[in-house]
Amino acid sequence: MLKNNKPLILITNDDGIQAKGMNELIRGVRSLGKIVVIAPEGPRSGMSSAISSVNPVRLTLLHKEKDLKVYSCSGTPVDCVKLGINEVLERKPDLLLSGINHGSNAAVCVIYSGTMGAALEGCILGVPSIGVSLTDRSSRADFTQAVWYGKYVAEKVLQQGLPKGVCLNLNVPNLPEVKGLKVATQTMGYWTKEFKKSRDASGYPIYWLTGEFANEEPDNEQNDEWALAQGYAALVPVQVDMTANRWLNRMKKTYEL
Amino acid sequence: MLKNNKPLILITNDDGIQAKGMNELIRGVRSLGKIVVIAPEGPRSGMSSAISSVNPVRLTLLHKEKDLKVYSCSGTPVDCVKLGINEVLERKPDLLLSGINHGSNAAVCVIYSGTMGAALEGCILGVPSIGVSLTDRSSRADFTQAVWYGKYVAEKVLQQGLPKGVCLNLNVPNLPEVKGLKVATQTMGYWTKEFKKSRDASGYPIYWLTGEFANEEPDNEQNDEWALAQGYAALVPVQVDMTANRWLNRMKKTYEL
Repeated sequence: MLKNNKPLILITNDDGIQAKGMNELIRGVRSLGKIVVIAPEGPRSGMSSAISSVNPVRLTLLHKEKDLKVYSCSGTPVDCVKLGINEVLERKPDLLLSGINHGSNAAVCVIYSGTMGAALEGCILGVPSIGVSLTDRSSRADFTQAVWYGKYVAEKVLQQGLPKGVCLNLNVPNLPEVKGLKVATQTMGYWTKEFKKSRDASGYPIYWLTGEFANEEPDNEQNDEWALAQGYAALVPVQVDMTANRWLNRMKKTYEL
Repeated sequence: MLKNNKPLILITNDDGIQAKGMNELIRGVRSLGKIVVIAPEGPRSGMSSAISSVNPVRLTLLHKEKDLKVYSCSGTPVDCVKLGINEVLERKPDLLLSGINHGSNAAVCVIYSGTMGAALEGCILGVPSIGVSLTDRSSRADFTQAVWYGKYVAEKVLQQGLPKGVCLNLNVPNLPEVKGLKVATQTMGYWTKEFKKSRDASGYPIYWLTGEFANEEPDNEQNDEWALAQGYAALVPVQVDMTANRWLNRMKKTYEL
C-alpha cells in the first residue's frame, strides 16, 4: 500500500486520555495506519451517547509524531468523535476504535457505555466503528489478549467494511488465554440493588451507584454473557436503528388516530 | 377503581425540574393516578443514557400533597429513574412518563436524548415507559397539543401495557392543531455542520455543538420525520435490544475463531 494511502484510524475511549487500555490499543494497532487519538481529558465512564449541549468543548494537541497525533478533549466520548470527524481530520477516517475499556460493556451495558456511545457515533457518521472492552475494571489490567482480539477485528473491518448503520461491540474476557471469538447477541437483563446509601461530610444522604447484573437469559447460548462465561471473546453487531419493527403493525391498530 | 389501587406514575425529564413541558404534563395526567416526580435539578439535555458512575447523587423532596410528590435529583435522567424505582417508590410504578421535552427527539435524536434515556431505563427495569417531546425548543412553548397526545398514549399504555423490552418515543409537532397520530419508524440520518468555533474570554478556541439534521430517508413515508412533516404526532416503538440480528450469520463466517 502506498504511504499516502495508509488507513486513517481515529481512536477514542471513555476512561480518558491517561487510561492504560487505550494506550495499549494504540501501540497494538500502530502498524495498521495513520493514527489520530482524540480522547476525553479525564474519566467519562457511563456517559452513553451524551453530548455537550450546554457548554462548549475544548481540544488540546498533546503529542505529534510520524503517523500519530494525540488530542485531549474536555467533552464526552461522542464529542470527541464529532470533533474528530467534523473539525480535526482531513478526511473521514477508515476506522474508529473506542477503548480498550477497563470493564465489560456486554449485555445491557451497551446502553450506558461511553465506549459504545463513541462507536455508535462513528457509525452514525458513516465510519466503520468498533468498541473494545476487557472484563477487568482495574487500572492496571492486563490488556494483552484484548489488544490481540481488537487488532484481529480491526484488520477484518479495514478489509471488509461494515454494513451501514451497524457497529461492533467486542468484549474480551479477563483470561491469560482466551479460547476464541463468538459472534453473539446482546444479553437481555438489567442492573439491580443499584445504590449504596451513605452520608456526606455534613451528614446529608447521598447515593452511590453500584449494583449487580441480573441476567434474564442465563441459558441462551447465543448471547454475549454466555460466550464470555465460556472463555470466548464476544462480538455483537450493534445497530443504530432502535425501532421495534415487529410491533409496528400491532401498535398501528392500538394507537393511530 | 379503589383509591389504593390508583395507578402509580413516575414522571421525569431532561430539561430539569423547572421546565414548563414537564409541569404541564404533570397537570395533564394528574387525574390518571398517584404521581411521583423525580427530575434533574437543572437542564440535562443530550445526556442520553448517562449514569453517575463517579460522583454520588443527591435527592431532595421539594413538594408533597395528596397523590403528588416532587423530588429533585442532582444526577442524570437515568439516575432519576434508577433512584425512583430502587429507593423512593414503595412499589414498581405502573407507568413512567419522561418529558414533555422542549425540542424534537425524533430520528437519530433518540440516541442522544436524555428524555428517551429515561424512558429506556424505565423499560429496562420493567416499567411501561413513554418519552414525550414537542418540536419546539422554546422555554415558553405551547404544550397544549403535546399534553393531549401524551395523555392519550399514557391512558392506552395503562390499559394495555407494552411488550417486554419496548418503550415509546412520542414526538408532537408544534402546531395549533395536530392532525392525528401515526406509528412510525426511527428516521435514518445524522447531524452535520456540528460545531461553531469561537473563542473564550482569554482568546482560546472553543467549540459549540450545533448542526443540522441530514435526513437519509426523505421519501420514506413510514418514518417519524415524515409523520411530523405531515402534521401528525409520531409514535415510534423503541427497543432495548440493539443487536443487528440480520447480520449475525454473515458475521459468524467472517469473524469467528
